Amino acid sequence: MYTLYSMQRSGNSYKARLALAQLDIAYQIVEVDILRGESRTPDFLAMNPSGQVPLLEVAPGRFLAESNAILWYVAGGSPLAPDDRIDRAETLQWMFFEQHSLEPNIGAAYFWLSLVKGGRELQRHALDDWMEEGYRALAVMDNHLRQRDFFAAGRYTIADIALYAYTHVAQLADYELDSFPSLRAWLARVAEQPRHIAMDWNQPVQQAAE
Amino acid sequence: MYTLYSMQRSGNSYKARLALAQLDIAYQIVEVDILRGESRTPDFLAMNPSGQVPLLEVAPGRFLAESNAILWYVAGGSPLAPDDRIDRAETLQWMFFEQHSLEPNIGAAYFWLSLVKGGRELQRHALDDWMEEGYRALAVMDNHLRQRDFFAAGRYTIADIALYAYTHVAQLADYELDSFPSLRAWLARVAEQPRHIAMDWNQPVQQAAE
Repeated sequence: MYTLYSMQRSGNSYKARLALAQLDIAYQIVEVDILRGESRTPDFLAMNPSGQVPLLEVAPGRFLAESNAILWYVAGGSPLAPDDRIDRAETLQWMFFEQHSLEPNIGAAYFWLSLVKGGRELQRHALDDWMEEGYRALAVMDNHLRQRDFFAAGRYTIADIALYAYTHVAQLADYELDSFPSLRAWLARVAEQPRHIAMDWNQPVQQAAE
Repeated sequence: MYTLYSMQRSGNSYKARLALAQLDIAYQIVEVDILRGESRTPDFLAMNPSGQVPLLEVAPGRFLAESNAILWYVAGGSPLAPDDRIDRAETLQWMFFEQHSLEPNIGAAYFWLSLVKGGRELQRHALDDWMEEGYRALAVMDNHLRQRDFFAAGRYTIADIALYAYTHVAQLADYELDSFPSLRAWLARVAEQPRHIAMDWNQPVQQAAE
């Protein structure tokens, strides 16, 4: 059984939890509070030198990092992970877009404004950039969705899971989505997919012994 | 025949050019000077709303963006793009790492210090972050390479191509690699791969008509 090292309120961790739930894959979970430095301990760094969650133990002692790589691994062979060469490339295109245009901006704003709180003054200079770049990413997404239900391959895939994670909490980070109607309709469509779970949903699986 | 929209001195564009050369795939190239705003024209934005190079026209009117997604597409079915599920996931792990830990730091420093030049004062505040985060990424890479020749799947793959693009110009952006011997040995190994081309290598293919 997989063990997932995860933080409940982390969007990147939520991607893995959402896919595992929708694929009906059982797993153990270990909650790691990055706000308390639990991903920077020597034990954790020995598992993932990048010091980040999520981290999936795919076999005893074998660890896979990076939320979007974890999505490709757990969804491999399922309709969520397209096999066709161009469908796969377009799914990847949006997942790379997510990691350099969406997550570093909306994810960072969410982290400081909603999780850490009180970071508003500290991060004032960076926050302006995150808002500007975050809105630019949201506009690109909204435009793409004007004539499509999902991001790639003509169906719900792990590209949607990856992009949903931080987009659906953008309002907690002060982004206003009123001017992105296609994006809001897509958020609703994603939430209606079979076996969808909310970010704050508690796992019905056993907490791993530590 | 593919058409690649590319900028010669862009590390992200170099990834695509390097893979196409090593796979011996013929293509046309259109040089896009992002420093002159050529990736922000209405015509270019109609092809890629993100306004970035590289961009690959895989079929007439069908465009694929994101350098690492382009790598997966052009290398699909070759040994450079692992098919095995865990090998694929580990290759992806390093390619996502590249896009959020290496490229935004070393790539940004390279862009401002080596391409734009004169950006040193303008970007002083950000530059400190780029140096710190860039060194953190280089240390993670050096550590991973201590007992490995390449990043994933036990062989040279598109993960190495992705990571090489900005790492091999890090010194042009004032990073010092002396304390990373495994990384330097890997840079030399990558440069010794069959059909390797340098970043400033000119394409022996016809310039596409514009």
